[in-house]
Amino acid sequence: MTDDIGAFVPGSRVRLEGRAGGPLSGLTFAAKDLFDVAGVPTGGGNHDWPTGRPVPTRHAWAIQTLLDGGATLIGKTITDEVSLGILGENAFDGTPVNVRAPGRVPGGSSSGSAAAVAAGICDTALGTDTGGSVRVPASFCGLYGIRPTHGRLDLAGMLPQAPTSDTMGWFARDAETFARVSSVMLGEAIPPANGRALPTKLIVAVDAFGFADADVAEALQPMVRRLASITGSSREEIMAPQGLSVWARAQRTLQPHEAFNTFRAWLDQGNPRFAFSVARALVMGSMIPESERTWANLMRQEVRGRLKHLLPPGTILCLPTTPFPAPLRGQPLSVLDPLRDRITCLCAHGGLAGFPQVNLPGAVTVDGLPVGLSIIGNRGSDAGLVAVARALEGKI
Amino acid sequence: MTDDIGAFVPGSRVRLEGRAGGPLSGLTFAAKDLFDVAGVPTGGGNHDWPTGRPVPTRHAWAIQTLLDGGATLIGKTITDEVSLGILGENAFDGTPVNVRAPGRVPGGSSSGSAAAVAAGICDTALGTDTGGSVRVPASFCGLYGIRPTHGRLDLAGMLPQAPTSDTMGWFARDAETFARVSSVMLGEAIPPANGRALPTKLIVAVDAFGFADADVAEALQPMVRRLASITGSSREEIMAPQGLSVWARAQRTLQPHEAFNTFRAWLDQGNPRFAFSVARALVMGSMIPESERTWANLMRQEVRGRLKHLLPPGTILCLPTTPFPAPLRGQPLSVLDPLRDRITCLCAHGGLAGFPQVNLPGAVTVDGLPVGLSIIGNRGSDAGLVAVARALEGKI
Repeated sequence: MTDDIGAFVPGSRVRLEGRAGGPLSGLTFAAKDLFDVAGVPTGGGNHDWPTGRPVPTRHAWAIQTLLDGGATLIGKTITDEVSLGILGENAFDGTPVNVRAPGRVPGGSSSGSAAAVAAGICDTALGTDTGGSVRVPASFCGLYGIRPTHGRLDLAGMLPQAPTSDTMGWFARDAETFARVSSVMLGEAIPPANGRALPTKLIVAVDAFGFADADVAEALQPMVRRLASITGSSREEIMAPQGLSVWARAQRTLQPHEAFNTFRAWLDQGNPRFAFSVARALVMGSMIPESERTWANLMRQEVRGRLKHLLPPGTILCLPTTPFPAPLRGQPLSVLDPLRDRITCLCAHGGLAGFPQVNLPGAVTVDGLPVGLSIIGNRGSDAGLVAVARALEGKI
Repeated sequence: MTDDIGAFVPGSRVRLEGRAGGPLSGLTFAAKDLFDVAGVPTGGGNHDWPTGRPVPTRHAWAIQTLLDGGATLIGKTITDEVSLGILGENAFDGTPVNVRAPGRVPGGSSSGSAAAVAAGICDTALGTDTGGSVRVPASFCGLYGIRPTHGRLDLAGMLPQAPTSDTMGWFARDAETFARVSSVMLGEAIPPANGRALPTKLIVAVDAFGFADADVAEALQPMVRRLASITGSSREEIMAPQGLSVWARAQRTLQPHEAFNTFRAWLDQGNPRFAFSVARALVMGSMIPESERTWANLMRQEVRGRLKHLLPPGTILCLPTTPFPAPLRGQPLSVLDPLRDRITCLCAHGGLAGFPQVNLPGAVTVDGLPVGLSIIGNRGSDAGLVAVARALEGKI
């Protein structure tokens, strides 16, 4: 298929056939340009990243797993620079078109992967999620997307950002494809949609719904009701008693500092080129005092404790994935910065606690823009969340 | 002439003949790509600067003045991004070759202008000097260079950085050419080398000599002695009783904040691409608290008072232009950052006080690298400093 939506890295349209007869046979996939593909330079979304680095000689674990599963790789997709960005506007490579929300950003940093799946160019695509980089584009592009349990999958061959928060993830347009891919990636069968493995309790995170735009919260209500009918029970709870903005503050303390440490030798040796906003994030990350990080690590423990308490096996929690649908492209930083901060308030728990989360598409605002509902389960419940996704689609 | 030293902006080799019969007839000049040339986009050393800006329809004052004087423009030269840099390594356009110090930086931000004059590609070239951007490359490339009295010349059509420190400036290889160009630019005759207009008192800034590398201070001694023989008297004085590093601190407080304000609308609207070090300088500039700027403005008044006290008419002060000769190209930021900070200690007075300064070439270190001696005079004494340069060359 042609790429007229600017989702792929120029010159990256390699085609690697999947293993014949695998469970994913017949499916095509793309990979965010943070994943190594043997023989292809890993671009990282930054034109100075590949300089002086050897071309990978082996595939990243995620690439190899999908190929072994039978899926065919069709190319590498544009990403925010070294995954630092949540909107999907790359000053070097451009902004992939969000076919579900014309004139608006696709979300990032897994921008090209989400845009390519949404446009039907491939069936699934690999992304990464440190602070929301799968969840946000999934919400903005109307896709299924997963941020798996932190530490569960092998990140070998994936360009790191902030390792204590880094995960991979993937997108799909329909629940059945999403389940097929998830089963291979997780190495685990997805429970049947009508099975007893489905959760029996639903928590509605009232603070998160209250934080989202009113029309987003409204648009998600039918899905919440369907979720409740699947689980059989639901109750409202505050997710973040300390405050969503306090959780966000902890994440914005830990993640940028860790990202700076990941890249500091490169910054020092290469003085690479970045969009101003990306360099700014790294500079701010370099200046976070240890006292702030000490506090943020304590808050991280509180967040983990809170989610563990809320989410025993059999319970899931739902919240708006993003507080609003995709913003317009090309807006000034003074408009985008406050939007980023609000997104972080609804995404910070992922990087802080590492619990698995799935974005469920289907809702649209009164303007017709997609916006996602997320479900979170206890650590390791990834397959169960995918099962809920399939059950929910069956009910739509 | 060809440009095999990477001094010129690609595609900028316009040729505009100077007015026939002018005092600068027969001379060629280049202009740092911060000066408007009618019909040519002003690049500013940054690939995103020209975006959305109209192509200039008239020449900058400095360009028009040299053309009217009879000099012929041969092209526009590479600069550090929007003049933010002191070493002359541009991540987008490369590093002009310093023919006087192979393998080493040319100095910046007027890097291409200095490199082109040093290589003999043109007779003179326009630069700008906010925090040392003419003085430093003049020192590193072994050239005459002037930072005129702040506010004296018309900066119309010149890309600003920090207006309370910004000046233009120019380079030449020999004192006679330097004097011809200076006379036209200053609109004032340069006093004869043997005239009574020459200063009669020389102050040797012992703190500045003590701050420079020992071999630099040593290499400059013969020139200091010749200067003393021209003036007839000399004495040693502390230039900065508060400390050169305190003066530098004041400059590093005022200039980056002002630069951020100059560019903030562009940063906000365009999120432009920069080398990390340049973006870092702007981010740091954005975060300087008002209390620090209040202090720095008071220190600026102290610096002005100190130089006014030291430099009555007829007195000049000399100091090493830079604490060391040109550093090696391509070094990591962790090596370059402390070098930049040391350079600022010997250059900060320029932006803080606005007194005129001329770099005198001629000295070389034991390694054969050029290093400059600077002379400073009271406000408005620009022509007198140029006269000293001519007198000194006559004595060499």
